[in-house]
Amino acid sequence: MNRLLLLIAAALIPLLASAESVKSPNGNVALNFQVAEGGVPIYEIFYKEQPVVLPSRLGLQLAKDKHASRGMDETDLMDGFSLADSKTTTFYETWEPVWGESAYIVNHYNELAVTLKQKPFVDAAGKKRDGRRIIVRFRVYDDGVGFRYEFPQQEDLNYFLIKEERTEFGLTGDHTAWWQAGDYDTQEYPMQTSRLSEVEPRIRAAIAAKGTGKQDNMRDAIIWGNASQTPIPNGVQTALQMKTDGGLYINIHEAACINYATMHLEVTGTKEVGTVGIQPTLVSHLTPDATGLKGCMQTPCQTPWRTVMVSDDARDMLSSNLILNLNEPCALDDVSWIHPTKYCGVWWEMIVGKSRWNYTDEFPSIYLDNIDWQKAKPNGLHAANNEKVRRYIDFAADNGLDQVLVEGWNVGWEDWANMWKRDVFDFTTPYPDFDLQALNDYAHQRGVKLLMHHETSSSTQNYERHLEAAYSLMNRYGYDAVKSGYVGDIIPRGDHHYSQSMNDHYLYCIKEAAKHHIMVNAHEATRPTGLCRTYPNLVGNESARGTEYEAFGGSNPDHTVILPFTRLQGGPMDYTPGVLETQLNTWSDNQNFVHTTLVGQLALYVTMYSPLQMAADLPENYAKYMDAFQFIRDVACDWSESRYLEAEPGDYITVARKAKGSDNWFVGGKCDEQGHRSVVKLDFLDKGRKYECTIYADAKDADYETNPKAYVISKKTVKQGDVLKLNEARGGGFALSLKPVQ
Amino acid sequence: MNRLLLLIAAALIPLLASAESVKSPNGNVALNFQVAEGGVPIYEIFYKEQPVVLPSRLGLQLAKDKHASRGMDETDLMDGFSLADSKTTTFYETWEPVWGESAYIVNHYNELAVTLKQKPFVDAAGKKRDGRRIIVRFRVYDDGVGFRYEFPQQEDLNYFLIKEERTEFGLTGDHTAWWQAGDYDTQEYPMQTSRLSEVEPRIRAAIAAKGTGKQDNMRDAIIWGNASQTPIPNGVQTALQMKTDGGLYINIHEAACINYATMHLEVTGTKEVGTVGIQPTLVSHLTPDATGLKGCMQTPCQTPWRTVMVSDDARDMLSSNLILNLNEPCALDDVSWIHPTKYCGVWWEMIVGKSRWNYTDEFPSIYLDNIDWQKAKPNGLHAANNEKVRRYIDFAADNGLDQVLVEGWNVGWEDWANMWKRDVFDFTTPYPDFDLQALNDYAHQRGVKLLMHHETSSSTQNYERHLEAAYSLMNRYGYDAVKSGYVGDIIPRGDHHYSQSMNDHYLYCIKEAAKHHIMVNAHEATRPTGLCRTYPNLVGNESARGTEYEAFGGSNPDHTVILPFTRLQGGPMDYTPGVLETQLNTWSDNQNFVHTTLVGQLALYVTMYSPLQMAADLPENYAKYMDAFQFIRDVACDWSESRYLEAEPGDYITVARKAKGSDNWFVGGKCDEQGHRSVVKLDFLDKGRKYECTIYADAKDADYETNPKAYVISKKTVKQGDVLKLNEARGGGFALSLKPVQ
Repeated sequence: MNRLLLLIAAALIPLLASAESVKSPNGNVALNFQVAEGGVPIYEIFYKEQPVVLPSRLGLQLAKDKHASRGMDETDLMDGFSLADSKTTTFYETWEPVWGESAYIVNHYNELAVTLKQKPFVDAAGKKRDGRRIIVRFRVYDDGVGFRYEFPQQEDLNYFLIKEERTEFGLTGDHTAWWQAGDYDTQEYPMQTSRLSEVEPRIRAAIAAKGTGKQDNMRDAIIWGNASQTPIPNGVQTALQMKTDGGLYINIHEAACINYATMHLEVTGTKEVGTVGIQPTLVSHLTPDATGLKGCMQTPCQTPWRTVMVSDDARDMLSSNLILNLNEPCALDDVSWIHPTKYCGVWWEMIVGKSRWNYTDEFPSIYLDNIDWQKAKPNGLHAANNEKVRRYIDFAADNGLDQVLVEGWNVGWEDWANMWKRDVFDFTTPYPDFDLQALNDYAHQRGVKLLMHHETSSSTQNYERHLEAAYSLMNRYGYDAVKSGYVGDIIPRGDHHYSQSMNDHYLYCIKEAAKHHIMVNAHEATRPTGLCRTYPNLVGNESARGTEYEAFGGSNPDHTVILPFTRLQGGPMDYTPGVLETQLNTWSDNQNFVHTTLVGQLALYVTMYSPLQMAADLPENYAKYMDAFQFIRDVACDWSESRYLEAEPGDYITVARKAKGSDNWFVGGKCDEQGHRSVVKLDFLDKGRKYECTIYADAKDADYETNPKAYVISKKTVKQGDVLKLNEARGGGFALSLKPVQ
Repeated sequence: MNRLLLLIAAALIPLLASAESVKSPNGNVALNFQVAEGGVPIYEIFYKEQPVVLPSRLGLQLAKDKHASRGMDETDLMDGFSLADSKTTTFYETWEPVWGESAYIVNHYNELAVTLKQKPFVDAAGKKRDGRRIIVRFRVYDDGVGFRYEFPQQEDLNYFLIKEERTEFGLTGDHTAWWQAGDYDTQEYPMQTSRLSEVEPRIRAAIAAKGTGKQDNMRDAIIWGNASQTPIPNGVQTALQMKTDGGLYINIHEAACINYATMHLEVTGTKEVGTVGIQPTLVSHLTPDATGLKGCMQTPCQTPWRTVMVSDDARDMLSSNLILNLNEPCALDDVSWIHPTKYCGVWWEMIVGKSRWNYTDEFPSIYLDNIDWQKAKPNGLHAANNEKVRRYIDFAADNGLDQVLVEGWNVGWEDWANMWKRDVFDFTTPYPDFDLQALNDYAHQRGVKLLMHHETSSSTQNYERHLEAAYSLMNRYGYDAVKSGYVGDIIPRGDHHYSQSMNDHYLYCIKEAAKHHIMVNAHEATRPTGLCRTYPNLVGNESARGTEYEAFGGSNPDHTVILPFTRLQGGPMDYTPGVLETQLNTWSDNQNFVHTTLVGQLALYVTMYSPLQMAADLPENYAKYMDAFQFIRDVACDWSESRYLEAEPGDYITVARKAKGSDNWFVGGKCDEQGHRSVVKLDFLDKGRKYECTIYADAKDADYETNPKAYVISKKTVKQGDVLKLNEARGGGFALSLKPVQ
């Protein structure tokens, strides 16, 4: 059978004729598994009888180690397997997230667990060994598949080192992909849209893409001039969103990445053009440690879940809970202290370059303990000062915001990044113009909290040494949330941001924070994989190119209609929207502009789900647009229900959400640089009830480049079944606020 | 001038004619410094007008880094210098160590500090830069020289990365050397004696030398089969003891190694035979980090002192305080809790293989938190059990020992080493048969303390995470000293035992321990460099091949008459002597024997100075030799005065010490496999006073191989000026206890 015939057949019957099989509850998704010739484990995935993943290999290459005793063995877990056992089960539950896009989540799947056994062998000491066993567990949902490798505890596979995981995803064609270049140390490249075959030729440009911004502040220089950057030649990051020419949406990511390195996907097979075109295969590529190894494992253990979401409706990519469902239930007994949070902060003006994190320019370099900060000469540009922070506290209190982030409050910002300084911050000593006690007291009087900031400068050993004192200080002064940061290369040197040990570090901090009832929002940490189900105090991550890049040259307008399909699959992003003064040179020397309309910024509060939402702009900028700012005041950040109304990756997203504990609905629509005409059917409203609908819309002539701040706010009364037609400008969007009329 | 003439001239006048010069207070040691052609810094050292170090280069090679901003520059600090300043000063002080070989130490030196300046340059950004400045500071003592590089804070040298330090020590000939093979991860190779030219050809054998022992327990297997071992092809460790053919003793080591990698010495130039023979040059070779770099520096900073001790009397090598003097004064305000300690412990029987550290053999591997230890099946061999520990407590209390070390008290020993397990111990959870409260209570009732044990398994991140809880637990139960261990490869992977970051880790633990009033005895940690002056709670280190190796094949009899010249230069060693039952197979299946006579073991308490002395053998073995054990009961471990009476590296050492706060003297003599006839002149006794002298001597026919346990104990009354002639057997020694007769 030639390849063409094979593929035609594949559309009708599974390729793996004698396979173990399992289908999703509604039958749409089917998975086959088989041990092929040579004992090679193979799987394939179908959606409505169309192939999604062609027969593809599973396995891991192990590394040789000088410590070869006690079952530590370098024989690969790639082949030589026979099927020892196979079990199929069904699971159904509903569970209630602490916060999220909906109040209840259904977790319904059919499971196939295959036990694979290698042949008995004689070890180095001449001892007869039973064959080693692994389990591959597949969970098949109506919207996709998750599978993982499990390594039961056994004498013959006790410890092992991973040279590389070799999980393959054979694709049916040269799909369109929304991707970010693979890298061990940054996730902040611009998102790319291309055929898979174009990934490798485009990667060099993708990792060099810097926007066009003037490099006018220190952070800027660090990010562009000296970024921690370790690209993979033909690799992309996950979640990878794809679309077949036949209109099938496929998304590959991972779930529950614990004690394991973060996965990238190498794009292979794009140079072999067959009779029916290119059929790329994606192959897992883990982040290495300082010695190049990918993992040190001890049984019993397992890999994260490898996830393949699939649907013929793009909206299902956004509404899927597959990744959360594959994570373990909440591990915390008490979650009463975890809450969604809207905040503003002393931040954007530093990003833009108008003020600074550091207090003094007096010293060429500093040792924290050797400076008399009271005597240090202020540079006059330090943002985190008592007067300014009080103004932000007042602004938050006056506008219903819960917290005020203050970056640059603690000593060490004089030479914090990329100097290979280990002892860079102590996380407890404020600058002399930041009165820790008085500012917290004032905030609490005004009914808001300060939001702590811990920039680690990626010096993780230093951070762990100070962690207990830093969290204790937070408890002492009444902080309950921390934004942490990992700018720069990892210290200890040689390690990478997404390695097994760093992933462990991030989780260690989350667990320690939970003991202190502290919520964590970790920037530059590894991209999330749904761990917020298990540890709901992980309320946010950055882990992608955020709003800050609008001050560094900008992000393409399609950025925020790609992120929900990619970065947001694993958990919420602290994208920090709400920059209503899109022209930065109106109030600073920064010549960059935000690549959305003003209304587009409002839409992001709904389209980019997060329990943590920043109002990123300056109070004085909001003062110019108080009518538009009203939406930011009103919008919820926790939801009982979410309905994706329209979606196409890179083009547009429209979503309606119902505020938790309320009957209010909010609708957001966001589009790319093409604009979008959105048709919103108000099916989701309560029957027979009237709603006051406030519409925040781009003005007719609005355009993110030429006329971004032209908007129209209107009100009308609506009811279930009404249809709103809304024009989204180039780089624009809309936002609706719907309140029942009493 | 040919080389021969040059050397003849060198014996008469300094080679560096126009040099900056400084001499030691008594004029014996002279140092010249000059900036030679090309701006190369050169120094030379003389002793009584004989050259010790020929004109030799100074400098550091810097590494290029992607972060090149803010004065981080890769231009080497090797040449292009001019002499900008030169200062000579004199210093004299006496200081009182918290514990030591004498009550007072004189610190008297003449100092030459030269400021070297490179040319102004234009940096990458086109900015004009002043020339970079470094200082080389020489301190010249009557018994040698210390010098270091200092890097003042300056815009043009703010941060830098060390590719390699290139400090050279040009030697006048192919000296005899007592050396240990260089290695980034072990200091436990047998000591070697050879000409310098033989180092490189012998290194392969030196690092493979394993003794002849049966590998009959887990620790044994780990050490021999899977040791953490990263040898340097032509490198030796310091302190390196040498002797010229002319009878000059030269010792090279380092002092105050803080925030810097440990130095090895490459032996170069041994293949070029000149007209007057080989003149090897030793070149510094630092321990790298995981990426191969040798150091990350921020000015102001400095290197450790590089020390060259020199004398024509071998005894001066042992009595010198040069290395302690080069360290900073005590950094602790309160030292009242620091005290010399004699201890026994549950240890030797595990080393020998009769009992075990681990409690159960039930599991192929363990996760600390997943085991119900109460239900785990005991293997019946666990040594650290209530009954046994009580017996050791009784033994200590009955025999004037202060503390009882218990290894294997805490969970995790089932798979503790070389499995790349990060979370290997928690340092707080006892095995079910070790009652932490009851045993400490019992010990305190009996007037002794337990001595804590923290084996880190070199998983330093794990240790640091648990450090505060571990030290707090010690405070809670009344421990005031900890033996820590660093067996196995360093986790995080790729780092090495003696790197800058690991040296920082060891010091971090010492400083944190001081906050808890805890004394530290760190095994497998980096070799000491006199830091115990600054942090006197660092009461001991292993950092060389200790007594345990007598159970793994043995150490040569000359081992303990080399160690005081080498390993002990930087600080005391927890050598754990006192194994009176030298034949291990009399009480175990271990076929090894101790390579000293029984009396030789007694002598070590005097010849191997340490404020921490173990009585390592089992109580039941001591019961067989209670008359000899009396010396261990009596001997002090803190001294007001020490006099080295006889010494020759690798042959013999005889030393007399006066117990602090007492008029008692103790004398120890130890020799190699040749035996030694010691002549002890009792000059040091108080004039006109009579002393009861107890003599512990090898019997006439004693021999470490054929008749080790033959000894004679005799008493006589002696007075100042008496001479004792004592025969030391092959591998033997003697011990004297002298008490004034009232």
